[in-house]
Amino acid sequence: MSTVLVTMPALETHRSVLEEAASGATVIYASNPDDDLIAQAEVIVGNLPIGRLQNAPKLRLLQLNSAGVGDYALLLRDHPDLLLANASGAYGLAISEHMFGVMLGLMKRLFAYRDQQQSGAWNDLGSVQGVYGSNVLVIGLGDIGGEFARRCKAFGAHITGITRSKRECPDYCDKIATTDALDELLPGADIVFMSVPETKETIGLLSEARIAMLRKNAIVLNAGRGTAIDTDALTRALQSDRIGGAGLDVTDPEPLPSDHPLWQCPNCLITPHISGGYHLKETHDRIIQIAAYNIQAVMRGEPIRNRVRLERGY
Amino acid sequence: MSTVLVTMPALETHRSVLEEAASGATVIYASNPDDDLIAQAEVIVGNLPIGRLQNAPKLRLLQLNSAGVGDYALLLRDHPDLLLANASGAYGLAISEHMFGVMLGLMKRLFAYRDQQQSGAWNDLGSVQGVYGSNVLVIGLGDIGGEFARRCKAFGAHITGITRSKRECPDYCDKIATTDALDELLPGADIVFMSVPETKETIGLLSEARIAMLRKNAIVLNAGRGTAIDTDALTRALQSDRIGGAGLDVTDPEPLPSDHPLWQCPNCLITPHISGGYHLKETHDRIIQIAAYNIQAVMRGEPIRNRVRLERGY
Repeated sequence: MSTVLVTMPALETHRSVLEEAASGATVIYASNPDDDLIAQAEVIVGNLPIGRLQNAPKLRLLQLNSAGVGDYALLLRDHPDLLLANASGAYGLAISEHMFGVMLGLMKRLFAYRDQQQSGAWNDLGSVQGVYGSNVLVIGLGDIGGEFARRCKAFGAHITGITRSKRECPDYCDKIATTDALDELLPGADIVFMSVPETKETIGLLSEARIAMLRKNAIVLNAGRGTAIDTDALTRALQSDRIGGAGLDVTDPEPLPSDHPLWQCPNCLITPHISGGYHLKETHDRIIQIAAYNIQAVMRGEPIRNRVRLERGY
Repeated sequence: MSTVLVTMPALETHRSVLEEAASGATVIYASNPDDDLIAQAEVIVGNLPIGRLQNAPKLRLLQLNSAGVGDYALLLRDHPDLLLANASGAYGLAISEHMFGVMLGLMKRLFAYRDQQQSGAWNDLGSVQGVYGSNVLVIGLGDIGGEFARRCKAFGAHITGITRSKRECPDYCDKIATTDALDELLPGADIVFMSVPETKETIGLLSEARIAMLRKNAIVLNAGRGTAIDTDALTRALQSDRIGGAGLDVTDPEPLPSDHPLWQCPNCLITPHISGGYHLKETHDRIIQIAAYNIQAVMRGEPIRNRVRLERGY
């Protein structure tokens, strides 16, 4: 292996980590590399636009900086030997902390207190909900759903994990079920946390009919892809106080148009798809650690971490 | 024992619990009892105004519904045999969840996202802080401080507990120190959580000089009594972005006047002393459980829980 091309941002400390892992190889940093650089690269670290990868005959490892894979998985159809890796494991910390804050903010009416703060009103807004003893439905038990579930469990919630295919109940869940059981489980949930990739099965997963099954106090949280929820139905449920609230770091469409009625729902907190990214330094560090591990694994002919194959569950 | 007087609110389920504990005695519910009722009471459950207790010759147990004791402790000077109990243990859950939400809201800029939501702005506000790996200084390790510390530890923070008098390090702290060490510890803290009763030692505990020692990203949280912080100095530190933020459920004075500049600090979240109370049903249930336990203990001549004596640490 001779050339590692890094297209994602890397701090000074990150460069040391990558260069140590790639010992012997040339490591080149370029956010927008030219075709010659791409043609030389045996490893690419970063989500280089997929069209630019046509001209990468030497590519052995594509290490994405995202947890989601999107269309990159399609590369494997024509190049079954390509090692494709995502950055799952890097984002769970940042996104779960963010979404936990959004959940508590909604449960404790903190955003409503914030709204009245500008008028200097010392005004009690009434009863609140608690994480302790609540029923949390975590749809999608990847890194993000798992880390969120762990934190809820530490606060004393009862966790039901939902996965696409059957698996054993992990230690941070009290119960596990597959998507088939969703209609049965939604009416009992205080919190519905969603973190599923966008696939044909997940588009519209939280449909109008399923939103109608939710408790009056239920809070919906989405950290995966906006399309997993029927946005219009959710908007109507929030406008009519049919459910307790929603916390969305992803929306459909995205960006959410400035005149979309969801922005004006007082029981909804919207953040612009920022719970991940490099907003928390630890996330950036973890992506680099995964990349370094995989560069070294490829050099040694060992198995990589986070390998993506054509068919994935959630 | 013949009469138990309950002046705090009690739901139907609570009445059953109290009446079962007081078996044989008459339980009377009155939020504003007349002097005759008070004169008969051997147990009073609730924070009856202290002046009204002059005429309670039969009183053996005064069970407060608050964690703080305030001037009630002074009753013990003239009535050393009176059993005085607070409701410590009932509030830790509700207050720690609330304050954890306030902390995450500040760390993740959720209140700033809320502020821009009304304009429908899909606008990234930049880097955030994380609980994981942060240094949390918890001043006052009662029920509230302890429960807050536990939750921070579950999120991967390093916890230093501060108590007035020396004690062993509890399992939810990494380190413990006494108030003398505060000046040494404040410069290393990312989060300063305060939950101390109002005593002459705690008034102005977080002084102007100590606020000046804090890191630029430090977040100050107060769930105890507003007087523990020099409010003017805190306001200036927030106005000039000298510190990262503050989350206050208690202020000095209280209520905070509507024209107080603290309301207008964007990096401050103020809630009107509502993190406790009966806002979370579990708190109410727990107060009743403590009261029931103590009513039964008094009837059986056994030691009560949560007994308050004249001198208390924090």
